This record gives sequence, C-alpha cells and structure tokens, in this order.
Amino acid sequence: MPHSGNMTDVQTARPGEVAIDLPDRFDAHLHFIGVIRTPWATRDQCPKNSQGRTDVVATLEVDPRYEAGLPELAGFSHALVLYWLHHSRRDLIRQVPRHLGEPRGVFALRTPVRPNPIGLAVVEILEVDGSRLKIRNIDCVDGTPLLDIKPYFASTDAFPQARNAKGS
Amino acid sequence: MPHSGNMTDVQTARPGEVAIDLPDRFDAHLHFIGVIRTPWATRDQCPKNSQGRTDVVATLEVDPRYEAGLPELAGFSHALVLYWLHHSRRDLIRQVPRHLGEPRGVFALRTPVRPNPIGLAVVEILEVDGSRLKIRNIDCVDGTPLLDIKPYFASTDAFPQARNAKGS
Repeated sequence: MPHSGNMTDVQTARPGEVAIDLPDRFDAHLHFIGVIRTPWATRDQCPKNSQGRTDVVATLEVDPRYEAGLPELAGFSHALVLYWLHHSRRDLIRQVPRHLGEPRGVFALRTPVRPNPIGLAVVEILEVDGSRLKIRNIDCVDGTPLLDIKPYFASTDAFPQARNAKGS
Repeated sequence: MPHSGNMTDVQTARPGEVAIDLPDRFDAHLHFIGVIRTPWATRDQCPKNSQGRTDVVATLEVDPRYEAGLPELAGFSHALVLYWLHHSRRDLIRQVPRHLGEPRGVFALRTPVRPNPIGLAVVEILEVDGSRLKIRNIDCVDGTPLLDIKPYFASTDAFPQARNAKGS
C-alpha cells in the first residue's frame, strides 16, 4: 500500500499503527450547542459493542439559546446526532483495533481517534421537552459536547442491504 | 412555543424565520481533509430533491497526507461522508423551506444553514483508487470541503422503519 504524506512512527500505541503530521492550521470552527448526558463517566465504562446497540436512555441537553430549533424533531422517530470526541488524539491514520488485531485505515473504522474527531450516532427519539431530548442508542462518555442534530430519513439514510466484505 | 436565547429578526429571508446571536467564540476546530468533486458549480444547480437520491457519480479527492487511512474502505458498500457547507450562514434557528412554506426548527431540517454547517450523506462506494474515491448519492456543490469518511454499518445505521409524522 502506498504511504503518502509525512508519517512518523512515534507515540503509536500498537505495532502496525501509523501516525501522521497534521496541518499546522485549522480550516473551520465549531460551536458546542450542548452536552450529552449518559451513565458512563469514562471511555472504559462505555459499551464495547461498537456495532451493536445500547438500550440505555441518554439525554441531549441543548443550550437554551438553540431551543427554538428543536420542537419539530418530535415528529421524527429517529435522528442523526453529531458530537465532539473531545478526549481523542487526531493523528493515527492507521490503527489496530483490539477486536481486529491488525492495522486498518482510520476512514474504514468508527474509532473516535480521527483527523476530525466527530462522532455520529443514529438515535431513537423518545421525547422532546423544551431544550432536552431523551434518546436511545448512543454510547459516548457523559459530558460529550454536542455539535448537531439532524432528522433521519429512511429514504436517504437507511441502507439495510449495506455490506462489509471483511465481516466486521 | 418558548423562544429562548437572544433572538433578532434582522436579515431573515422569509416571514416566520428567526435568527439568533451565536456565541462570540468557537469551541473546536477542523481540518479540511480533501474536496468533493461534483458536476454542480452553484447551489442552484444542485439536485433539489433533498430526500431523494442522485445517481450522478462524484469523487472524493482526499489530501494525499491522509491516503493511508483509506484502502480498507474498498471492503464496504456504503460510507457516511461529512463535509463543510462553506457557503452557509449559521444563525437561522427557524427557517421556512420552500417546499414546506411554514417555519420549522433548524434541527428538524437537513438545511445547510445551521449553527455547525456540517453536511452528511450516506453514499455508495464505487471505487477506491489511492486517495480518490468514486461515490454515488451526494448533492453538494463542486469544491465542497471534506471533513470525514466513516464506514456504514447496517446494524447501527440503517433504520428503514424510521417515521416522520409530518410526512416530509
């Protein structure tokens, strides 16, 4: 496989992992619009089944500044939630997940360690109460900053036939 | 409906739209990791069927710096693509989409105008060629900055039964 860009092998956690030098400037900027409340205080406590689901109810606490953007979400059964993985390093371009045991490119993984550490979950909407949303199916740490909520459309977002040749 | 936060009604495009004052600082920062090549030079030329699909083939041109993160995506049929909607204002908390004709909260819309203008598309992966990915099912403007690519898992991402009470 071609290895382009400026790579270093310092500070990688496991054999086969590869770090790159990231650009020395940023291109765009984000507002945290709220915080995600879950029962898990640390990453080690979060559910490990990354391709499974959790039935635990979590809360999206949106900053009241943005409350007027929320009420019509009550008409949707599911939403896409984007959040900021604020504990993550960003430079590991190839990683060795524990459950695979061999290196894989970061863009073929749902790891929180990525150049732009934005997490994504499809959640079930249980209740919209002012600026608080009760949801199901998210596995992040308590206190994770919230970036965006989007309505989920089966017509464009649901591909039940999607395949993965590697079976993981 | 409660209207919290600091709102103004200046510079809104249509009756019923509401703008808010955004925070005066940013909380997190992004790297553009590449660019999306589509046939559409302006927003007016982009497909209008926001809940439909387009069969047009587009290209994700990833910066060669990140190429080692890509090859295993070839094992997946679909991916989640995040991109930066760089032409968008960010302060319209309630908007009147043309196809609805009445105001709706921004988080119940897939509009590019949102506090964090991150676009999201579920795409079909046609080919991974070094740092270039041929894909299908994206409707953004040519030159749109790319933020992230994630593998799509039917088990956590596909909810074909998802409902929308408003039918739009």
